Amino acid sequence: MTKTSIGIVGGMGPAAGIDLSAKLVSQTLAANDQEHLPFVLFSFPDEIGDRSEYVQGKIKENPGLAIGAVLMKMEQAGAVVAGMACNTAHIPEIYDAVMEVLARNNSRLGVLHMIKEVGKFIRTNYPGKTRAGILGTSGTYFSGLYDILSENGLEVINVSEGEQEILHSAMYHPGYGIKSLPRGVSAKALDILHGTAGSLKRRGAEVLVFACTELSVLYGEHLLEGLPVVDSNMVLARALIHAFAPEKLRAWQPGT
Amino acid sequence: MTKTSIGIVGGMGPAAGIDLSAKLVSQTLAANDQEHLPFVLFSFPDEIGDRSEYVQGKIKENPGLAIGAVLMKMEQAGAVVAGMACNTAHIPEIYDAVMEVLARNNSRLGVLHMIKEVGKFIRTNYPGKTRAGILGTSGTYFSGLYDILSENGLEVINVSEGEQEILHSAMYHPGYGIKSLPRGVSAKALDILHGTAGSLKRRGAEVLVFACTELSVLYGEHLLEGLPVVDSNMVLARALIHAFAPEKLRAWQPGT
Repeated sequence: MTKTSIGIVGGMGPAAGIDLSAKLVSQTLAANDQEHLPFVLFSFPDEIGDRSEYVQGKIKENPGLAIGAVLMKMEQAGAVVAGMACNTAHIPEIYDAVMEVLARNNSRLGVLHMIKEVGKFIRTNYPGKTRAGILGTSGTYFSGLYDILSENGLEVINVSEGEQEILHSAMYHPGYGIKSLPRGVSAKALDILHGTAGSLKRRGAEVLVFACTELSVLYGEHLLEGLPVVDSNMVLARALIHAFAPEKLRAWQPGT
Repeated sequence: MTKTSIGIVGGMGPAAGIDLSAKLVSQTLAANDQEHLPFVLFSFPDEIGDRSEYVQGKIKENPGLAIGAVLMKMEQAGAVVAGMACNTAHIPEIYDAVMEVLARNNSRLGVLHMIKEVGKFIRTNYPGKTRAGILGTSGTYFSGLYDILSENGLEVINVSEGEQEILHSAMYHPGYGIKSLPRGVSAKALDILHGTAGSLKRRGAEVLVFACTELSVLYGEHLLEGLPVVDSNMVLARALIHAFAPEKLRAWQPGT
């Protein structure tokens, strides 16, 4: 039996965990099945409350508790390093609750921090660019989650609150939101995405961050309004490979 | 914590397990993340020998032993019903070894049989069609794995041994084979796929079965040479939902 593996907390939403898994595979150097890395994906969407709704006070229980429990189960199954396929789960209030569950259980699991990895990634791969425009949920926006990029000398560019509300709807609207469709993306959601990217560009953004895994899933392009796109799920996939088996990490090629 | 879940044995290859996971999600009736079904994907490609190579006598250890160990681990993590994202793993010699591991460990896990599910699926969804053309690996071909479809009153149509060798290369060739490419499918592999489908049609096939998950992954169409395609991974995804939470199964629509 495989003794150790990479762990992926999915279910936030389910497609995001699958997307992270697919990127883990696509970014691994392997000539056949057997050379690929061992991983487990735990997708328990029914147990983890909506992260944005928690931040907005619409639900009471901190989703971090359930995420922590999933990570513990994953560690029992052999995971030694893990990632959460959800930006909003990294908001301090949620992330800290996750870490407390692990500490209380004397976990030795290494949990990577998706947002910190994005900061390092931009620094390494776009050394000349310092202004990062953020495309994410309102939970991520109002929490200031991405302000942490300043640790890597990056300036965070956001849209206005009104524009953010519209961007959020492109992900969550029951009619045209990305989460509501079994696959594909509505023309309306795509319009909003382009409009928001254009606004960020006008505000000085030099690189765009897909700061919600719903975007990672559904928009495969690596350029938006002429700016390079950094996909948080792709960054996390590469960081997991690097942590588990650095020699297996493919050289970075935008658009792969 | 989620008490029970669906289990997916991936890693054969890794992309097939991810594809099965994605189909599990796309075939589930859910209006938001929380309504989706809990599942775990265990992808340990390094531990499971190549199924076709085992059937051909190129490797000695029965991959069923490792698959059985993965299923036991999955059951410990809460899985109550499971599927293996690999046709060749259902060859009796391998499948029986899997089942022996489970029996020896007093497992209560329900393992669905992908090929039997394909038979039931064709009977239900294509009631007027009785001749099924098989597109799969040489391991699947020489084992006669799909002859089991006769239990559902279906006649199995195969290509010649020479044509089968060419079809196998579309999956396994180190240069143009589907397994060798991180994503996408080579023009050569696609040509072979169409050529083989045409041959099966001339031999009387009324429906085609993608009997290798490599094909499930890379060819999204539901018609090939004018014949409806039954994707074994899609069938297994739907069978897993039906076994775990039948009320959550989407009505069948070809091409979804």
